[in-house]
Amino acid sequence: MKRSSVAHLQCSIAQTLELVGEWWTLLVLRNISFGQRRFEAIQADLGIARNVLSDRLSMLVEHGILERVMYQEHPQRFEYRPTAKGRDLMGVLLALMAWGDKWAAPDGKPMLVTHTDCGHETTPTVACSHCGGELQWGHTRVQAGPGLQRSVDVG
Amino acid sequence: MKRSSVAHLQCSIAQTLELVGEWWTLLVLRNISFGQRRFEAIQADLGIARNVLSDRLSMLVEHGILERVMYQEHPQRFEYRPTAKGRDLMGVLLALMAWGDKWAAPDGKPMLVTHTDCGHETTPTVACSHCGGELQWGHTRVQAGPGLQRSVDVG
Repeated sequence: MKRSSVAHLQCSIAQTLELVGEWWTLLVLRNISFGQRRFEAIQADLGIARNVLSDRLSMLVEHGILERVMYQEHPQRFEYRPTAKGRDLMGVLLALMAWGDKWAAPDGKPMLVTHTDCGHETTPTVACSHCGGELQWGHTRVQAGPGLQRSVDVG
Repeated sequence: MKRSSVAHLQCSIAQTLELVGEWWTLLVLRNISFGQRRFEAIQADLGIARNVLSDRLSMLVEHGILERVMYQEHPQRFEYRPTAKGRDLMGVLLALMAWGDKWAAPDGKPMLVTHTDCGHETTPTVACSHCGGELQWGHTRVQAGPGLQRSVDVG
């Protein structure tokens, strides 16, 4: 059940979805971010088929998002740890969570997130790196960047 | 080709992916955010099968993320506009873009984003609503919230 590819789209949203847009991938990363790093624990929590989970973890290792690390020698046991590339997906996970908390959590937030740097409960907000204001729909403009190799209409 | 559901997971990441985690959905929203609101334009840009696009748009309308609006009477023509719920997905799109710009754009950013409120080019950053600092992997703690209805181990 290989989905089609969007690698041809010259867009970082498409390129990101090409790597992590597969069905279970972001949920697996979610579990790892909660500290569930072993195959058995992730499998039990998500209820995902073993072969599907195995495929996803291998793909994430292959793309340098996770690394498979031996944490016990006798018997050999492995866990999955995020690389810098994987840890950088925290923002995507938190943006998905914030939207779901607002629009898909009729009984209230299932989980509360504390930002340990400041010690306060937080609502993850996608903000401008220049002014710090929230980046809202209709308040951004896009133009072709250096990585664009053909003329496209983005307007 | 109906994927399995994660609606049973009491987590806003899972609930969001349940609504927008389907393969083409976020890309369709991306196109609409660029102002491409008509079926034909989206279909041509993404190269997506007509029946798949039609299914995705119907699903997004059904879930209140888009609305289908007649913009011409003779002949009747429709376009898709985001609702408040749909516009709130801008943060998710921009978080995906920022990650792809950093990790999956070897030739440079395909698109540059300007925050029109401040007028500066921006790198979308997922930040703490309290202190404004970036929410990084390992700098957050989660605990059960009011919407959690069973005991789960969140790490």
